[in-house]
Amino acid sequence: FSTSATAEGKVRVKKIAGEQCPPGWLLDCDGQPTTDPNTLYGTPPGTILPMGGDQAYKGFGLALMIDIFSGAVSGGLCARETPITPNGNCVFLMLIDPGHFGGAGHYAEQVRQLCEFVRGCPRVDGVEQILLPGDPERMTMAKRQADGIFLDDQNWSQLTQLADRLGVAAP
Amino acid sequence: FSTSATAEGKVRVKKIAGEQCPPGWLLDCDGQPTTDPNTLYGTPPGTILPMGGDQAYKGFGLALMIDIFSGAVSGGLCARETPITPNGNCVFLMLIDPGHFGGAGHYAEQVRQLCEFVRGCPRVDGVEQILLPGDPERMTMAKRQADGIFLDDQNWSQLTQLADRLGVAAP
Repeated sequence: FSTSATAEGKVRVKKIAGEQCPPGWLLDCDGQPTTDPNTLYGTPPGTILPMGGDQAYKGFGLALMIDIFSGAVSGGLCARETPITPNGNCVFLMLIDPGHFGGAGHYAEQVRQLCEFVRGCPRVDGVEQILLPGDPERMTMAKRQADGIFLDDQNWSQLTQLADRLGVAAP
Repeated sequence: FSTSATAEGKVRVKKIAGEQCPPGWLLDCDGQPTTDPNTLYGTPPGTILPMGGDQAYKGFGLALMIDIFSGAVSGGLCARETPITPNGNCVFLMLIDPGHFGGAGHYAEQVRQLCEFVRGCPRVDGVEQILLPGDPERMTMAKRQADGIFLDDQNWSQLTQLADRLGVAAP
């Protein structure tokens, strides 16, 4: 997940749709809180806040460490005022084989038990089910495969204009 | 850092001091928001919220992954309703040698540049300096080495009672 309060693409969708962002997503170019998505694309640009609300210092710390992993450990470049590679991002990927540590079977059994425990916790009134990471995305995918993908008129219009310009037939 | 809104020890200090916790730290045993630190130690106990405010689902996801690393990958045990080892925590430690990746010199230079860039960012009015992780702790250590460690009467009294019981002279 992003270590900011929202992903940049979600601000862009709000901008194109002509909608305001929720409070807590953005600062304008003077460092003041705003809900106007246009501030992020102004000159000078605003910024997206780190995730975390009252604990946003933790989101900032996570973002800093990710910059260090992706930019410094990787052999790439960390953030700077004028990016050297404006069209690229550095990346750090780590793969762990549980078979080299506690064992693949042990791993699978512990994760299964943990998921079952969390899903089975008591729920407050009004909460129908407890979700684990990936559940909302799986539910959204099922819904969109059944009903299609909703796009507001402005975002759809930008896509069809782009298709026109590239000579691609819009569906 | 902890992936919850606060560390448990800070709630305990509030409880002993007879103070309320800030909103956003705790739920009572019925899953309702509360500022009363006693709820965390009741029967049944309340709980500490995950970090993140409006993005607390990210704090929850981090906590879940840490449980999987510490409990499942390590060969230990993940969280469950009745802990098998109530007095212990499982742990996962990862050490990375930048010399095996982008190089130790590259790493040091990128991190130095990143820290300098972040510390040098423009500040809003009223912010005297930009802090990096560890700065507040270093400032607190310097202050406490100069002025001593402040403890409220109730926490001090609990410590001296414990010292009495163990036959240790309080300083």
